[in-house]
Amino acid sequence: MSYVLLNDQITERKNVKIDMEDRGYNFGDGIYEVIPIYNSKLFTLDEHLDRFEDSARKLEIKLPYDKNELEKLLHQLKNANKIDNGIIYVQMTRGVSPRSHLYERDSNGIITGFSREMKFPEKPKQKGIHVFVTEDIRWLRCDIKTINLLGNTMIKRNAFDKQCQEGVMHRNGNITEGSSSNIFIVKNRTLYTHPASNLILNGITRQLVIQLARKNNIQVIEEAISLQQLKGADEAFITSTTQEITPIRKTIGDVDATFQIGEITKTLQQSFNKYVEIHCK
Amino acid sequence: MSYVLLNDQITERKNVKIDMEDRGYNFGDGIYEVIPIYNSKLFTLDEHLDRFEDSARKLEIKLPYDKNELEKLLHQLKNANKIDNGIIYVQMTRGVSPRSHLYERDSNGIITGFSREMKFPEKPKQKGIHVFVTEDIRWLRCDIKTINLLGNTMIKRNAFDKQCQEGVMHRNGNITEGSSSNIFIVKNRTLYTHPASNLILNGITRQLVIQLARKNNIQVIEEAISLQQLKGADEAFITSTTQEITPIRKTIGDVDATFQIGEITKTLQQSFNKYVEIHCK
Repeated sequence: MSYVLLNDQITERKNVKIDMEDRGYNFGDGIYEVIPIYNSKLFTLDEHLDRFEDSARKLEIKLPYDKNELEKLLHQLKNANKIDNGIIYVQMTRGVSPRSHLYERDSNGIITGFSREMKFPEKPKQKGIHVFVTEDIRWLRCDIKTINLLGNTMIKRNAFDKQCQEGVMHRNGNITEGSSSNIFIVKNRTLYTHPASNLILNGITRQLVIQLARKNNIQVIEEAISLQQLKGADEAFITSTTQEITPIRKTIGDVDATFQIGEITKTLQQSFNKYVEIHCK
Repeated sequence: MSYVLLNDQITERKNVKIDMEDRGYNFGDGIYEVIPIYNSKLFTLDEHLDRFEDSARKLEIKLPYDKNELEKLLHQLKNANKIDNGIIYVQMTRGVSPRSHLYERDSNGIITGFSREMKFPEKPKQKGIHVFVTEDIRWLRCDIKTINLLGNTMIKRNAFDKQCQEGVMHRNGNITEGSSSNIFIVKNRTLYTHPASNLILNGITRQLVIQLARKNNIQVIEEAISLQQLKGADEAFITSTTQEITPIRKTIGDVDATFQIGEITKTLQQSFNKYVEIHCK
């Protein structure tokens, strides 16, 4: 039996009924988070819930209860489904109201969530992936983790059609991020990644990688990476909750390049694994 | 009792249960149309359904049945709810599948729809409205009528907070469209509006107004309108299904200007009303 989260209840999935005039369903008016589970522990939960609150604040969606309550519920959800390794997905929409572009500030959000047992695949992390580089067609508030994800899904589909495992986007000549990941390059032992602006989602794994790099005395520069810089990079990798640190072996599309899985990438992967091990004992 | 459309059935609203992993709910992965009803007639239904099919094609969402079947169902929905004047809202999402950015092309769309009795308000059409002019933060595929509408809703909220009835957007110095409307200006008896590119939704009312203008020997130029051109316009109005042709009296925000409700606007309003009368006898 599968349990899910519905507002403040852990309940059977079959009991969940979303209204056809939920603003999430008519406007994509909602936010979400994906939280990793290692060894039955919710990893970086605090960071994810802080960002969840931040997204809610930016869209003026009111959480029906506080962060501690949500934290408790997500633990209950994980336990109900006996998840050892995998993810919890949680989303909140602005709730139900007669369809109108104009939203009201006093409506309570509707929260749903599910968990999934899964092992993050080892092969791409060890062997690397191919990515398709293409134009970033998304809106200018990519800093909010919303369910308005059509641009991302179109680019992901496009990448897979070209035998790539991820699509990486560029805007005005600069690499922004992947369809569901952030991107880093290494040049002369220095790490580069797009700054946390309105043009990217400031990934929790991205932030952790920056922190781990600095602990390993690797310089990190948060500035826009041009297409030329990507082409000339020594190493490149993407980061995300489910892909962790995944090396890029080849790019096609608007940048043709191949990369080795280099020393910096490997150091960060080891450092990441150790960090997970310590925090999810 | 309220009847709604669910796939190929007209059913009571309480029977509709949207799945929490409907891609419409997790990704805003869907499309929609709003069709006006005058005198119990579905007005410009063909044009709306053609665009619905076009949006579906662009997103590779498969309609579960053909346009004729949908047309029949929308008539049934209107009749079931005995709507004389108002709207029908219809949307289609990509359907239910375990959450993943990567969509499959063979999933059948899920169609929902409702109708609403309403009289399109006369006052704004006669007296005009104020609009808030601000930056266009949306994605670069505004030509698809999707439910990824967060950018639009944020701008609508912003406009209302500034005592305006609509938000009108500009990108790279050019006026694109309103949050739920198209915009026209008149200068020296010539009508200007943004061309139907990837930056705007090619409104059915927009297309009808262009057609009516030409029938009235009013020259129409479809090219980008700069902020300066808006400021210097003789007349300005917005068009949409529920707002028909609504004059702009004042703009604030990034353009400060006031306008009279001029002769061209009035001619087009009369021509529009006549067209509706003839087609919805």
